[in-house]
Amino acid sequence: MTNQPMAVTMGDPSGVGPEIVLRHFAAGGLGDDVVVYGDAAILEHGARLLGLDVALDVVTRDAMERRRAGALSVIDAGLLAASDHAPGALDAKSGAAARRYVVAATEDALAGRNAGLVTMPMNKEATQLTDPAFVGHTEMIAELCGVQRVTMMLTAALADGGSLAVTHVSTHCSLREAIERVRPRRVLDVIELTDATLRRFIAAPRIAICGLNPHAGEHGLFGVEDIEQIAPAIEQARAAGIDASGPHPADTVFHQAVHRGRYDAIVCMYHDQGHGPMKLLAFDTGVNVTLGLPIIRTSVDHGTAFDIAWQGVAFTDSLRHALDYAWKLAV
Amino acid sequence: MTNQPMAVTMGDPSGVGPEIVLRHFAAGGLGDDVVVYGDAAILEHGARLLGLDVALDVVTRDAMERRRAGALSVIDAGLLAASDHAPGALDAKSGAAARRYVVAATEDALAGRNAGLVTMPMNKEATQLTDPAFVGHTEMIAELCGVQRVTMMLTAALADGGSLAVTHVSTHCSLREAIERVRPRRVLDVIELTDATLRRFIAAPRIAICGLNPHAGEHGLFGVEDIEQIAPAIEQARAAGIDASGPHPADTVFHQAVHRGRYDAIVCMYHDQGHGPMKLLAFDTGVNVTLGLPIIRTSVDHGTAFDIAWQGVAFTDSLRHALDYAWKLAV
Repeated sequence: MTNQPMAVTMGDPSGVGPEIVLRHFAAGGLGDDVVVYGDAAILEHGARLLGLDVALDVVTRDAMERRRAGALSVIDAGLLAASDHAPGALDAKSGAAARRYVVAATEDALAGRNAGLVTMPMNKEATQLTDPAFVGHTEMIAELCGVQRVTMMLTAALADGGSLAVTHVSTHCSLREAIERVRPRRVLDVIELTDATLRRFIAAPRIAICGLNPHAGEHGLFGVEDIEQIAPAIEQARAAGIDASGPHPADTVFHQAVHRGRYDAIVCMYHDQGHGPMKLLAFDTGVNVTLGLPIIRTSVDHGTAFDIAWQGVAFTDSLRHALDYAWKLAV
Repeated sequence: MTNQPMAVTMGDPSGVGPEIVLRHFAAGGLGDDVVVYGDAAILEHGARLLGLDVALDVVTRDAMERRRAGALSVIDAGLLAASDHAPGALDAKSGAAARRYVVAATEDALAGRNAGLVTMPMNKEATQLTDPAFVGHTEMIAELCGVQRVTMMLTAALADGGSLAVTHVSTHCSLREAIERVRPRRVLDVIELTDATLRRFIAAPRIAICGLNPHAGEHGLFGVEDIEQIAPAIEQARAAGIDASGPHPADTVFHQAVHRGRYDAIVCMYHDQGHGPMKLLAFDTGVNVTLGLPIIRTSVDHGTAFDIAWQGVAFTDSLRHALDYAWKLAV
């Protein structure tokens, strides 16, 4: 096989990540165009746990083209043995291993050995047991790539067959801090990243930008950030030829996008402004895309879910959507 | 007829309010248990505009029991003539009249002459032309009732036949100000108002309280208000026998309520936290309920919509839902 495969990092071995990979493969959902970064011993042990018949094919990072059709191709980190598998438990070795899978897959993406990354969940607390400086999955990948201007995009498949993308000026910080981050330069960055990403498959993406305050401030009556920080960024984006509009009231713009089909993407000012409506639209099918990286990276939109891990009940849909979206960006 | 009717204030004559009242009546949606507070001359002129055959029955405030079956009963303010009707226009006389309908209906509710209020939209700018101190519809009613501890509840009819109620610690203020208003006393007030309202028809309402910060602060990592301001209020509510839980991450709690049926109500910390998901759930069917008043008051969840007023296209569903909810609270 000559084409580059898409990398799927299997995530924390204690969580639902490798379980979902195995079950999705067994259901015929992972083709020959995928290679898993993980521990072969955990995948073997996990398949037995789940009663699945999965043929593994261990390949090496510099010879991925020699992978076998019909098998689950694995870049074996060789970090964990079957006896290390701790389903559902917060575990230091597992947290450290999950980190290493992502490092390897990112390095290979940067080197052009794979087409990009689809990441299964890490567990922040588990990884911090051996790497106290670990802030987050996305931050780590950005650092490995040497970039700082990144943003999180969530996508939802809509009932009409279309899809909606939502990006964020900030995500994991307090609401007080989020307000401080609403500055023209950052808002413009996020608009540009959103536009550049969607242009890979939409000629002229229609981007709605939310206000920060209720009713987008109602002409300055409920706060001035909408006028002073957001409007100038929209103006600059429009001057650069981007179909950007707003600031729109954040409570009605989702309805306009979803039920009226008016926008391809919505730029949100803080975490819950975007995540609230999106989790309602696509709780099990959402995809998380990191914009601003020199490589493709999508992620499932759920965590390690230790409470239900390795019981055969976790939904596998999010992996399917994350893979689809990664290929959509890759072509 | 001896039972008290529900009052429907017709709203700003230039907007969609009276149009929706007339069309909903013509479609058989307004029974003998409703009395409209408005201007009979506008309703007559409006019916002609819309080509509707509507029999009006003007009744007096002290003799509402003498209303006629099959007709649209009206408490006639006598403020406007047909020639004053200015469809779609921001108009000082109309804005002042809309205010007077609400004053009359509220006074009658306080005096026990009607069962409560369902309000059609006023236009803030229009009313401010003659009453610069006018802040808002709800604030005015609260003042007439002599109360200050009120909150806005939004309701949505769910696909499974149930309904979800969302209340707010603050609504129409800047996000910065909203953060300052998240204090234990106010959060507890809103939890109590929510509980007391739902207890009119649910024995032990299950109330989820949102955090302020993303992931409800993730144990203090993204802000401390969740721990310092919200958790103590929840503890006090629980000590008082209320089934309150949280603080929950605001982006997943709606999914839990809507798709898993876990909660009857969600207490939100600011406007868009509640309005974002709710407008997506129930854009045309949402009902706005004012809690904390000594009278019943529900409202349609839309504005005067001057751009489409008197064209026969405005949705009438919100009035139907607002009336249903008012009666649900009245029994």
